[in-house]
Amino acid sequence: MSLDPVLDQIDAGLPQALDRLFALLRIPSISTDPAFAVDCARAADWLVEDLQSLGFTAAAHPTPGHPMVVAKGGEGGPHLLFYGHYDVQPVDPLALWARDPFDPELQDTPKGQVIRARGASDDKGQLMTFLEALRAWKAVHGTLPCRLTIFLEGEEESGSPSLIPFLQANAAMLKADLALICDTGLFQDTAPAIVTMLRGLLGEEITVHAANKDLHSGMFGGLARNPVHVLARVLADLHDETGRVTVPGFYDGVTELPDEIRAQWQNLAFDHAKFLGDVGLSIPAGEQDRTPLEMIWSRPTAEVNGITGGYTGEGFKTVLPAQARAKVSFRLVGNQDAEAIRQNFRAWVQARIPADCRVEFSGHGASPAGVMQITHPAFESARSALAAEWGRTAAYVGCGGSIPIAGYFKTHLGMDAMLLGFGRDDDQIHSPNEKYDLECFHKGIRSWARLLAQLA
Amino acid sequence: MSLDPVLDQIDAGLPQALDRLFALLRIPSISTDPAFAVDCARAADWLVEDLQSLGFTAAAHPTPGHPMVVAKGGEGGPHLLFYGHYDVQPVDPLALWARDPFDPELQDTPKGQVIRARGASDDKGQLMTFLEALRAWKAVHGTLPCRLTIFLEGEEESGSPSLIPFLQANAAMLKADLALICDTGLFQDTAPAIVTMLRGLLGEEITVHAANKDLHSGMFGGLARNPVHVLARVLADLHDETGRVTVPGFYDGVTELPDEIRAQWQNLAFDHAKFLGDVGLSIPAGEQDRTPLEMIWSRPTAEVNGITGGYTGEGFKTVLPAQARAKVSFRLVGNQDAEAIRQNFRAWVQARIPADCRVEFSGHGASPAGVMQITHPAFESARSALAAEWGRTAAYVGCGGSIPIAGYFKTHLGMDAMLLGFGRDDDQIHSPNEKYDLECFHKGIRSWARLLAQLA
Repeated sequence: MSLDPVLDQIDAGLPQALDRLFALLRIPSISTDPAFAVDCARAADWLVEDLQSLGFTAAAHPTPGHPMVVAKGGEGGPHLLFYGHYDVQPVDPLALWARDPFDPELQDTPKGQVIRARGASDDKGQLMTFLEALRAWKAVHGTLPCRLTIFLEGEEESGSPSLIPFLQANAAMLKADLALICDTGLFQDTAPAIVTMLRGLLGEEITVHAANKDLHSGMFGGLARNPVHVLARVLADLHDETGRVTVPGFYDGVTELPDEIRAQWQNLAFDHAKFLGDVGLSIPAGEQDRTPLEMIWSRPTAEVNGITGGYTGEGFKTVLPAQARAKVSFRLVGNQDAEAIRQNFRAWVQARIPADCRVEFSGHGASPAGVMQITHPAFESARSALAAEWGRTAAYVGCGGSIPIAGYFKTHLGMDAMLLGFGRDDDQIHSPNEKYDLECFHKGIRSWARLLAQLA
Repeated sequence: MSLDPVLDQIDAGLPQALDRLFALLRIPSISTDPAFAVDCARAADWLVEDLQSLGFTAAAHPTPGHPMVVAKGGEGGPHLLFYGHYDVQPVDPLALWARDPFDPELQDTPKGQVIRARGASDDKGQLMTFLEALRAWKAVHGTLPCRLTIFLEGEEESGSPSLIPFLQANAAMLKADLALICDTGLFQDTAPAIVTMLRGLLGEEITVHAANKDLHSGMFGGLARNPVHVLARVLADLHDETGRVTVPGFYDGVTELPDEIRAQWQNLAFDHAKFLGDVGLSIPAGEQDRTPLEMIWSRPTAEVNGITGGYTGEGFKTVLPAQARAKVSFRLVGNQDAEAIRQNFRAWVQARIPADCRVEFSGHGASPAGVMQITHPAFESARSALAAEWGRTAAYVGCGGSIPIAGYFKTHLGMDAMLLGFGRDDDQIHSPNEKYDLECFHKGIRSWARLLAQLA
């Protein structure tokens, strides 16, 4: 099948592709907040309709949480599954957004045009690159390039509680020769990258309860236990002076980097000063004996994602709070056992709680780390297609974030996965003013067309 | 002047006195939140009108913050100034209130009838005990008992920013022979108490800034500094293992308890197990070599009153926050220098901030500790009047809370002050479901009538 007319069709149809993306971005599909459940369902329905317009048989499958969109179409060639997610992160602190997060806009910036909205990069803009490549292909060739299954999740940003049961119950419907996952980025904003190493994730919420009500800090201060002090001590003790996590057994299963990968990463010449400088920082804050790339790609972490206790409004309130709460997450690597770490962490925290206080734990999703099998021939096809579009060799890289779906495809469907995407480090995903570069959207669509031409 | 008809008048008029208190409690005069400024003004106006009905010349004096109510009336005898405050604490967490905090109700409880509302005990119910005593006196005798100045503040719960300038500008209007301050409580719920030792208060808000925006904890976690970790370490370091505050110079000016007072406090037989048990705790959490009464009355403290950072809503958000914030307050005793401690604390925090982070400080009110001159003859009159009403010897006690007005009266007006009040430990002031016992309100009014009969 000829590729050039498809690329021409992509270039000519870019304005309409943007219109479609904007329509999807206008739906506030925040999966972690139950108030937005109806919007998640709307986003799923929108995608079903769009996939049907491409000739797919598509449906939004109900789950105990948000629906799973599954579409099947095309014939011949390898059977490819494409995965993306239509849900987005919460938008707070809303005051830091320059405009409504769900009113997308194409903006001129010194670095080029950007699509500004929550979800523009993570992951609506990315998943639409694949759908737009298919649309152009179909417009030129009249058919889809090969046998395809599209699988779009609505709970990726909230721990994917329905994912494994859905995979297990629908293995026959979902099993393909290879999964393509589009939820990652370019390396240092310019080099196309295929992720071969993914960190896992474990979430724990801890609430320290002291007095049975808020107390007056004059009447009780100095005598009654302050749960914020207890919690601060626990969180301060979470790392030692060298940056290592102190929870017993935490490093069990952590594997050292193979020499080849270590050498390849050294060649990547990661500019950590720029990476940190872009967000206003300068000092690598992790384990002192590790390189910056190891800190974000191949080492496990413990981070507080949120903390609250007592009076946090305007002015001052001299209160001894009854409780204090923190959300703590762990990034996992190698063969770390998420559930074992959860139990060790809970016991470690419990040992630091005074006898007249109590601690309550609430577990959030746990997913192991993932390591891709780059021996699959599609990896070399992808490197070649990406190099043709971006004019640079595609790198095999790690990814600090957790994309557990890759591991689940392997575990539950016996299917290998390839992760590639077109985000940039300054996309501000999970932050206010998220954006996706128009160039990334455009070249992302073209990249998929090139890859499909090679694989089909 | 005969006392008994006044006491009879108080007993007969209790229902109407309650109606008046309820009207005042319905005004949500939260001084720390600018959204309630108009309600603070309404509360001041309500008091002016009530004082005028008692024959006072009264006015609400504007300030840069909330108005000061000043009323003058009566003739002869000693010139007494009465101080109270009409502002109240915020009501959050509102979800923990069993009913609207500003819809007062008389409720039956196993311990007797209580007046339930924000401000019922702190300080609207208490200040109204004095006004109701005057009302009964005037109804019986036709005049006020002696020369009186009533001074009601509207910023006591928010650091009293306008107080000192107002005292300085209006010294001639406010100077009297003795100040009576009604913002304290009974000792162990039963013994009338006169406070002779008050802790001061210093407030500091610290904000640790790390990255210039919230970061994705997968992309940056392990490399970028987490400001919650920095703040947790600072707060954990605030006390050493023995419970002492570690800020350099913090204990400068702290005086040891005189032997007589130490002996008197031992005789008070403070039941700290019950005091802590009533709020669900059991272990004294302060300096390990101090008695529980010392911890709350005569030792300085450092307490976190509020902390916030990152995502604190429902579910989980894998964010590295850009900033984390804490409100910290210090209770001061003896001759501790509040401003010196503020500077020492800021330098101590600053030294714990990584080079690529910054810390921002916001100072809240600072007031020194106060020690009363119990040689004034009014103290013995008060002990006698209180003993007659409550059937128990009145105790000279300390107060862990900060009532800086007593010190300011001495410093700026050269006027001694006597602090007595009728609150109980379980009044839940500054907490949800604040109450004031009907018995305290009733006997409080009668106590003032007895005291006025002795002093007039």
